[in-house]
Amino acid sequence: MPHIQLADGVPGIRSLAMYRPETGKPLYELAQVLLRGESPLSQAERELIATYVSAQNNCNFCTQSHAAAARALFGPDRNVVDFVLSEYETAPISEKLKDLLTIAGRVQMDARTVSDEDVARAREHGASDRDIHDTVLIAATFCMFNRYVDGLSTLSPTDPAIYEPMGERLAQHGYAVPANSPA
Amino acid sequence: MPHIQLADGVPGIRSLAMYRPETGKPLYELAQVLLRGESPLSQAERELIATYVSAQNNCNFCTQSHAAAARALFGPDRNVVDFVLSEYETAPISEKLKDLLTIAGRVQMDARTVSDEDVARAREHGASDRDIHDTVLIAATFCMFNRYVDGLSTLSPTDPAIYEPMGERLAQHGYAVPANSPA
Repeated sequence: MPHIQLADGVPGIRSLAMYRPETGKPLYELAQVLLRGESPLSQAERELIATYVSAQNNCNFCTQSHAAAARALFGPDRNVVDFVLSEYETAPISEKLKDLLTIAGRVQMDARTVSDEDVARAREHGASDRDIHDTVLIAATFCMFNRYVDGLSTLSPTDPAIYEPMGERLAQHGYAVPANSPA
Repeated sequence: MPHIQLADGVPGIRSLAMYRPETGKPLYELAQVLLRGESPLSQAERELIATYVSAQNNCNFCTQSHAAAARALFGPDRNVVDFVLSEYETAPISEKLKDLLTIAGRVQMDARTVSDEDVARAREHGASDRDIHDTVLIAATFCMFNRYVDGLSTLSPTDPAIYEPMGERLAQHGYAVPANSPA
């Protein structure tokens, strides 16, 4: 049961954007520009970072929904998502992306621990300022979304099948503020 | 030294909004509607929650800047800010606000630990759905800002005197996206 009165049957962040559209609008705009706007990181890579951080925060709704979006965006390479969630250090991804996931993990735990060495290693593997910036902001942003969704105990389905169409929609259409109705 | 190339001498979140205005815009809009828009919580109370969470995350820039804003907004009661940072349970604030700070602290640590009992206690002391919603979203949002600012190691002056005019400006004018120049 959510801690406040939210629309019946609407899960996670959607129920909160419907409850308070004034804050929902900048939150969805942030997600759209950060995860779908111009970046040296692909949309799939950005969803993967969002998924990884959400998993570290044990946020079921965000982990499942963004994992589904990442799988849809990775297409034939979709298995990389579960590989990264299980053990990113040995996953079939670039060294640069591994270094960025390390930085994202530090931001999730205690952002002050991102070290010059972490950043230098990522640069050696090709990371630019924008790669590093976007990684840190994605990690920070999901530390927010995870807390918002779980702190108010929003609806969080456990069945992975429910998240598949959600992931397809996020992959194809991105983050549009939900209309203020459950439809 | 910041981990990426930012405008010289510009501290904290301002340097990041200037670096990437596309994400700066929704971030400042979120701060403005959340901390200055319509709410059952006063602007001073909302800045106090933001300050408390930033202190729990050991984020010097956000703690000092929002403490300065809260002091400016509390006016003659400005000492309440340092009282809350030191030990909010005995501070001269309402029972409702103490309960909301307890909820904010849980969101900061692990949002899944906000319990039905925490929420029921706040309601007994007069908290509405919107009080609880705004508290959780402010706490979650500052878990983001704190990580964004510290994860990129932005400039964070230690001298409290530097933050006084910043707090006055935030109290009087709120959160306007900084122009893309250091002026």
